[in-house]
Parts: sequence; structure tokens; C-alpha cells
Amino acid sequence: MAAASGNKKARTHPPYELLYHPGIPGRGEFIRLVFEAAGVSYKDVANESDEGTKSVYALVDPASTGDKDGNPPPFALPALRIPGEGKNGNALVIYQTPAILAHLGDKLHLAGSDEAQRAWVMGHALTALDLNNEAHDTHHPIAVSDYYEAQKEEALKKAKVFREQRIPKFLAYFERLLTGNREQGDGKYLVGNQLTYADTTLWHVLSGLHFAFPKEMEARQKDYPTLFQTFYPAIQEINGLKEYLTSDRRGPFSMGVYRHYPELDRE
Amino acid sequence: MAAASGNKKARTHPPYELLYHPGIPGRGEFIRLVFEAAGVSYKDVANESDEGTKSVYALVDPASTGDKDGNPPPFALPALRIPGEGKNGNALVIYQTPAILAHLGDKLHLAGSDEAQRAWVMGHALTALDLNNEAHDTHHPIAVSDYYEAQKEEALKKAKVFREQRIPKFLAYFERLLTGNREQGDGKYLVGNQLTYADTTLWHVLSGLHFAFPKEMEARQKDYPTLFQTFYPAIQEINGLKEYLTSDRRGPFSMGVYRHYPELDRE
Repeated sequence: MAAASGNKKARTHPPYELLYHPGIPGRGEFIRLVFEAAGVSYKDVANESDEGTKSVYALVDPASTGDKDGNPPPFALPALRIPGEGKNGNALVIYQTPAILAHLGDKLHLAGSDEAQRAWVMGHALTALDLNNEAHDTHHPIAVSDYYEAQKEEALKKAKVFREQRIPKFLAYFERLLTGNREQGDGKYLVGNQLTYADTTLWHVLSGLHFAFPKEMEARQKDYPTLFQTFYPAIQEINGLKEYLTSDRRGPFSMGVYRHYPELDRE
Repeated sequence: MAAASGNKKARTHPPYELLYHPGIPGRGEFIRLVFEAAGVSYKDVANESDEGTKSVYALVDPASTGDKDGNPPPFALPALRIPGEGKNGNALVIYQTPAILAHLGDKLHLAGSDEAQRAWVMGHALTALDLNNEAHDTHHPIAVSDYYEAQKEEALKKAKVFREQRIPKFLAYFERLLTGNREQGDGKYLVGNQLTYADTTLWHVLSGLHFAFPKEMEARQKDYPTLFQTFYPAIQEINGLKEYLTSDRRGPFSMGVYRHYPELDRE
């Protein structure tokens, strides 16, 4: 997978390396969208070569107590490696999607314009990621280590609750945020008058929900007009994101966090 | 509930207000521990008066699009209100446990000593909070809105997986972090050579697991000697935390995130 399209900003940033599972958007996609929106180059290590994939899995070796550069081992992927930004000019490795988003948000000017906005952006992104996690748990309510088919009965129950209670609760909340920020954000931004990583994160969660629960989302859209008529289309038209989302670098949803099991969707 | 014990630092900080459900430690406890460890005063609003409780629930009114001070509505509790720190001298309100911890960690010097440590502290705290959330889901695997008894069959399955797979995976990870940081942290700190909010957060999760799964934790402790023989006892002896944890301000676990259902524990 190639780096973001040429942008003058790219030269002023370190050579960021996204470390994530190959072949699926997954939680790595939240990080990719930030780079693409900022027009900043990055390596998508596991998607670029088999050796890259190997190096990513070596990083989360369950025996590791850290790397030679003094970084602690990540608990799970995604992780971000930033050559030159660690101790004594070594590489820095950080992990956990919200921590990576917070770090990049600050560096790439996607975290709001002051300290208050910065905290709100983090809060809203965390809320969107909670929705992401709940969507995942609809097909794995009992054991992440087991097959969907082995927990399908529970998945049917969990998905019903998710569709009937959790989706409207979260979507109504984001609609309220957009309404409350309409004067500055014009329905297009959750916080202030410019794009933040809260917007890109929410956008991707919504795109995943459209894939996993197409009937449910179709039926619900009319209840959240700002979210679906203004915010969602506006974000995907943003410079950088538009080019990325229409490129073959944007990986399709398949069997990751978002899965389309028709029996889990509305009838 | 009274404020933290008198400390000279308290006078240099704004009058922090923790907004959380009354009567349970819950996710509010992660915020309390940071204040107590820093020796900084705070109001525990819902625990101080019925009016306080009312004001907390007004904040998360599902019709709210924000408050008169220009703050967006929190999705859920806990939230933190900081009079004087918002726009035009108004109050600032932020929400989401990790966002509040990150904000306070910076202000109260509990977020590590440089940018790398700051990112690691956030990553480790998020991982401990993931474990917290998984512990919650053992008794509510299907619907957070329904009773435990209505989802007990699924809870038994989920708790088995949690005890046999997830607890050892997380505990082994934190043992590895402590081992990898032994030179600086001496087994007492996850990052660097001083207390951070990652430590207080992990400590509280472990204390909750001891309450909810006493047999499982008893059987597992010997496998993680640094975590249980060094880290856990060291954190609860820290100035501020020791006084708090032995006071009646430390609320007991009961029917919140951590619940002791013997049938969910090891036999």
C-alpha cells in the first residue's frame, strides 16, 4: 500500500509506520484516516510486504518485555512506530488506538484549536470507538477467540439489543453534538469549525455500520438528518479523504470488526 | 464525601468537580484515585448532596445539546467539571474516563516525564480500562439495560472465557511491563520511575478483580509475582492513596462494574 498522495507537509514529518494486521481495515483504519486527512506519508507495514507482516507480529510476541529501543511491548495492534522520536534518537513505539489518535491529532493539527476542544475531541473519539467495540461484540459476544458460528445464538440476542437500543442511543448522541456545534461546525464537524480525528473516527464507524447492518441503518437514517445528510457526506468529500476513499488503498470491509451477517441485521 | 486531605498543592489547582453516579466506585473511582494520589481537592458532587446528584443527572439528560457554558453534553458519566477553565472564564466540562485521566495526568504530574512516557501511560491505562470493561461484560454479556439474571446463562459462558483466557492474557501483559521497566520502576511503576495514572488505574482494576473473582485471583497470583508481590502492595502504600484507601471515603464494591457472583468465579 503506497503512502498518502504527495503533499508538501509530508516532508516536515517523521517517517510514520502503522503497525497493524494486513488485509482488513480494522482498528488500523482510524489511524490511516488521520494520515490521509492530513496528507501525511506513512508506511502501512504489514500491507507492504511479508517481511513487514512478520515484523508486526514480532512486535506483539507474547514473551516480549520490550524492544531494543526501550519501548514497552504493545498489548495489541494497532501500534505506531516513529523512527527518530524515541530515546537517544531511537524509534518510538506507541499503542492503543485512542493514544495513537491523540498523539497524531496533536502533531497533525487534527485535535481542535485549544485545550477544551482537545479534551472534547478525545471524548467524542472514545465514544465513537466504544460504538465500534460494541459493533464488534455483536458477532463475538462470548469469546473473541472462538468462531462466530459457535456463539451465534448469543450473537442474535446481542445484535438485537445493539440495533434496538445501542445504535439509536449513540446516533442520537452524535446528532445532538452536531446540532449543539452547528453555529461553528455547520453540521460538518463535531468540535469547532475544522476537521478533527473525532470526525474521521465517527465517520469510519458509521461506514462500518452501513456495511454490517445495512437494513437497520437505512431505516434509522431519517431520524438523524444532520449526521447522515450533512456530516457523513461532508467528511468523505474532504481533501485527502476523498482521494483515499476512492482509491484501492481503502480496503473493503470483510471479516474484521464489521461483518455483514444478514441474520444479525433488521429483518 | 469530603475532599482529599489537606495538601499545600490543593490551593494551586482549580476547584475540580467529579460528576458520577452516587454510591458506587464505578468508573468514577479511576478519577478519584488520581486526585487522592496527587493530594488535590475535589468535589464528589453526587455523593455530597441530593441536589448534587440531580445536577449530575441533568448533565446527561438525553435531550441536551450542551450547557450554557458552551460545553457539549457528555455521552455518559464520569464527567469532570472545572470552574474557570472553559471559554470566557466559564466552567469546562469534559467526559470519558481516559480523556479525564489524560487531562488530569498532565495537570497533576501523573502522566510520565516526557512525550514517550506520556503516550505509554495512556496506552497502558487504556489497556487496564479494557480489562475493566471486559470484567463488567462478564455479568452483562448481552444487554447492559437488562438484569443479570436475564442473561445469566450467557454470563456463565462469558465469565469462563474471561477467567481462563482474558485474565491470564492481561495479567501476563502487565507482569511483562513491570519486568521490562524493572530497572527504572523497581516493579512498582509501569512507566519510568514514578507514579502515573496508569498505575492507579491498573491497581483499581486488580482490586476489583479480587472482589469479583476471589478464587480465580487467588489461584493466579503466584504466576505474576511482580504484579502481586511488588506492584499491588506498593501502590496502596503511596502517600495520599494509603490515607484514602483506609478511609470511609473509599466506597466498597457492590453492584457496579465489579460484582461478586460466586457462580461466575472459579469453583
